[in-house]
Amino acid sequence: MTAGGPLIPERAVAQSVATVMRDGERDAVAVEEPLEIRVDGAPLVVTMRTPGHDEELALGFLVTETLIDRVHAAGPSPDMANNVVDVAGPLLRDPGSRSFSTSSSCGVCGKGALEEVALHAPDLPDGPLAGGLLDRDLLAALPDGLRQPGFLRTGGMHATGLFDPSGDLLLLREDVGRHNAMDKVIGRALLDGALPLHDRILCVSGRLSFELVQKAAVAGAPVLVGVGAPTSLAVSLAADRGMTLCGFARGHSVAVYADRGRIRA
Amino acid sequence: MTAGGPLIPERAVAQSVATVMRDGERDAVAVEEPLEIRVDGAPLVVTMRTPGHDEELALGFLVTETLIDRVHAAGPSPDMANNVVDVAGPLLRDPGSRSFSTSSSCGVCGKGALEEVALHAPDLPDGPLAGGLLDRDLLAALPDGLRQPGFLRTGGMHATGLFDPSGDLLLLREDVGRHNAMDKVIGRALLDGALPLHDRILCVSGRLSFELVQKAAVAGAPVLVGVGAPTSLAVSLAADRGMTLCGFARGHSVAVYADRGRIRA
Repeated sequence: MTAGGPLIPERAVAQSVATVMRDGERDAVAVEEPLEIRVDGAPLVVTMRTPGHDEELALGFLVTETLIDRVHAAGPSPDMANNVVDVAGPLLRDPGSRSFSTSSSCGVCGKGALEEVALHAPDLPDGPLAGGLLDRDLLAALPDGLRQPGFLRTGGMHATGLFDPSGDLLLLREDVGRHNAMDKVIGRALLDGALPLHDRILCVSGRLSFELVQKAAVAGAPVLVGVGAPTSLAVSLAADRGMTLCGFARGHSVAVYADRGRIRA
Repeated sequence: MTAGGPLIPERAVAQSVATVMRDGERDAVAVEEPLEIRVDGAPLVVTMRTPGHDEELALGFLVTETLIDRVHAAGPSPDMANNVVDVAGPLLRDPGSRSFSTSSSCGVCGKGALEEVALHAPDLPDGPLAGGLLDRDLLAALPDGLRQPGFLRTGGMHATGLFDPSGDLLLLREDVGRHNAMDKVIGRALLDGALPLHDRILCVSGRLSFELVQKAAVAGAPVLVGVGAPTSLAVSLAADRGMTLCGFARGHSVAVYADRGRIRA
């Protein structure tokens, strides 16, 4: 891992926490501020996020929306005084031309959403990661490894962690938005030349929605673990893309909703 | 309350839950499917949601985006086979003309986001609701009153409840998306002629983001209570609009982040 570092420096934690009054006393809450992502100067989207690692967020968002697959020469230009990150194009496609979850051929349906992701997410090889079969105990314990500095201060941040197959934390990002935390990790991985995330495990602090599985799939991650419940479409998408999907990871237990021979029986 | 009823009928609960395999056994998860909201036949947005009460969701979304303030003659036309709800226009404004969180005059910032909401959210009168001052114990206990049938089966749904000042539950909606659960409640209230939600309390099962406070503010709700933490911008917006905002409601305790003389000292 390069600039920005695998974990979250104290300066970034301080930037992500604000002081408010709670019952007459000072209390720490997670900062939420809009960020405008621009491409070649043109506004693309505004997302509400926790400041910090904003270039990573912008890049990760564009990667998981399948709008970029590399960092162009200039790199992203953050303008934090105005909550803007400008990313150099060109994009891989017109951002207005298509979006996940819609397909003109079949109306709007879950099947169409799966087919859209299949167009962009690499096929994953079945069977164990390079390090061998994963133990359930290791997967169950991943949330304990997230060690969220922002959450500990505020009780109000989501996290995504990137782990190697032996359960060592390589990268951690927090945000008020669970999708933003995932995008920050994927954006950092893009900057580090670490995409696709083969032989890596992603772990999220919350529930497992279609959107999070979609982002992990596009990033090429074979294993996604969450503390919370998956949705029906999250399970369907993981199965469709050949991913391993685990929910309710709570220290000593974990529920497996999809696998392809990566977890020890 | 009229058609649809205050609470969630068994038929709707069944529609919102799917069966998947978990470690070789059958397990219930929350259904997540796309819904396309159209206005006069033109696609406006696709949201991932839990099926059920989709007309309410579409109307509530349009209300909280300040695109409608009434139900037009035809009413919404749900086409559930295709996951589409078509709402009769006209809209109050061009949906592409402006969005929350952006302001051309000042760039992108939290202050601009607050100003945008102020344009659309009614001023709330200070002081107690019609029923008198609220006890902290009543606010702390509201989450216990949510009694979520979908969450009990899946562990994976958010809820919004509408309460009267004595803590009686008037209306409950669940969804995989916390913003959708709020929109369903507000859409139902629109259909019932119950907007603005003066003298009502909204309670959500999760964290308190800017978006949720925005929706409550536009609906005219003076009191918003959450089980989780608020963000910095959620606290700022509640204070700016004269709302009462409470977080970490956990049965016997609650944290007050903003008030205007509605809670008993």
